[in-house]
Amino acid sequence: MENKTNGIIAKYVFGVDIGGTTVKIGLLDLDGHKIEVWEIPTRTENGGEKILPDIAESIRFKMEERGIKDSQVVGVGAGAPGPFSDDGTILKAVNLGWSEFNLKNELHDLVKIPVKCGNDANVAALGECWKGGGQGYKDILMVTLGTGVGGGIIHEGKIFNGANGAGGEIGHIHIEDNETVECNCGNKGCLEQYASATGAVLLMKRILEKSDEESVLRGTQFECKDIFDAAANGDKLAIEATKQYGDYLGKGLAMIASTINPEIIVFGGGVSKAGDVLFDLIRPSFEKYVFHGAKRTKFALAKLGNDAGIYGAAKLVLDTVS
Amino acid sequence: MENKTNGIIAKYVFGVDIGGTTVKIGLLDLDGHKIEVWEIPTRTENGGEKILPDIAESIRFKMEERGIKDSQVVGVGAGAPGPFSDDGTILKAVNLGWSEFNLKNELHDLVKIPVKCGNDANVAALGECWKGGGQGYKDILMVTLGTGVGGGIIHEGKIFNGANGAGGEIGHIHIEDNETVECNCGNKGCLEQYASATGAVLLMKRILEKSDEESVLRGTQFECKDIFDAAANGDKLAIEATKQYGDYLGKGLAMIASTINPEIIVFGGGVSKAGDVLFDLIRPSFEKYVFHGAKRTKFALAKLGNDAGIYGAAKLVLDTVS
Repeated sequence: MENKTNGIIAKYVFGVDIGGTTVKIGLLDLDGHKIEVWEIPTRTENGGEKILPDIAESIRFKMEERGIKDSQVVGVGAGAPGPFSDDGTILKAVNLGWSEFNLKNELHDLVKIPVKCGNDANVAALGECWKGGGQGYKDILMVTLGTGVGGGIIHEGKIFNGANGAGGEIGHIHIEDNETVECNCGNKGCLEQYASATGAVLLMKRILEKSDEESVLRGTQFECKDIFDAAANGDKLAIEATKQYGDYLGKGLAMIASTINPEIIVFGGGVSKAGDVLFDLIRPSFEKYVFHGAKRTKFALAKLGNDAGIYGAAKLVLDTVS
Repeated sequence: MENKTNGIIAKYVFGVDIGGTTVKIGLLDLDGHKIEVWEIPTRTENGGEKILPDIAESIRFKMEERGIKDSQVVGVGAGAPGPFSDDGTILKAVNLGWSEFNLKNELHDLVKIPVKCGNDANVAALGECWKGGGQGYKDILMVTLGTGVGGGIIHEGKIFNGANGAGGEIGHIHIEDNETVECNCGNKGCLEQYASATGAVLLMKRILEKSDEESVLRGTQFECKDIFDAAANGDKLAIEATKQYGDYLGKGLAMIASTINPEIIVFGGGVSKAGDVLFDLIRPSFEKYVFHGAKRTKFALAKLGNDAGIYGAAKLVLDTVS
């Protein structure tokens, strides 16, 4: 693939994934092959004022190092943790120290190359759709099962943002009427309270409290992975916890699939490392609750890991600039 | 607005709404002004084999009557009650006697004018987005509260179909874990079981059964409208039923809004005739359950009534053919 602008052939695109601790930057060719990936620290002090200058400097330095001219670069795509409006304004990004500003314009002023940006979860979903677990599909739901539950919707190959950039914020779908504990968002009974890694631990703790049965996890400090491991080894209470986990997640995904009817759901994040066993846990509840028209929804594991963001960011700029 | 094809100026578009009893056909100009609307019976006998020939004949007759040439017509848009695939194949339409076939191609062969078609609920949503309660917005959720609960999603001004045409089938989102009665779809606890006109009657009946209190509806054959009327007149149990109705609907819409984050939700169908009082019933529950990024979602009443389908069908063909 080539991209001709003013007779000069562009060859490169940068994908930037801005996280709370590090910024990951990728240099890719226009077919999405990684040429180089590196990281710089995210300097969040003073309202995160250094973050964009650091990124711009790192990109300009890399271009100089490799003798890449501006005209050879299609642009810079960037994903950041916050809701975005269509014009590239990030509305809030607590983790980065940022308050509302136009990320697209500011980064462009610094780096002097076309910039496109979006919410990191949506951008990662686009990456998985382009080069990962959703490759070959154009309507996907990406679910990230980590400390929280993130989501991104790709519709006809493009990010589905929604009116205020909150499209795909599926972690806060209401799923349980009988919850007494508040979610981080302030509501009670959100999907994230059960289907995140933290949620799995909560479910297990509640089971241990209610039951007198033995469990290898009783009296230990355990994490989500320990629960799945214990379940794999036949621990009855851990099996019950993973079953509940699958029931909640299946139910939540059924609601979403009934609404947007994706071709495939792609699972990423730490919990997805459990692999296909996760699908066996989710499928019964998903099929129980989903509208029949969406019953055939495929499940797949994400493939790009922490690189999804840079692929997606690169694709974002390729789709709009080229 | 004009549409030039081969130097001849097109002036007209037909919008067709295929229902189980009648087919409504509209002749519109390209700005969406109604020139004439008429109805023909839907002949569902023999697998509905006469439906498309009847429509084609009626359109050709109207063109002859008005001296409209083929070149003056942009095309014919049609909405029908069933899921569609992208190529215009209707997968099932029980009410019409149809099994799977390509509606777009068959109608085109008969009418000899470009044809575009889609699911009736989605097409009605497009109509309301173009000329009705969602005018001026491009990301809308249309909810039709009738015998059932229908839905249609418009994203960036276009119908959001989903992978199997089941996008926006929001009536079958799971909303209540404690339901014992089956929904028409075979699941239990679907939104439609509570938020439809039939659902409101069910809620009221259950309240009457549980309570000994007086109600003007006790011992009567009542419909949804009677419940809202009784509530407006201060009937305590009817007030409770409308409150429950609003709670369920608000909760369901919150889940959907958290997923797709529309700018506005447009309410149509018989129950929406209750008017703004409906919003007062829904809003508290919607705001309780919705993700904060979608809290600002606007509510509006549909404006086109039974004409939404013909407007939407006309717009469908204008968007794709012109």
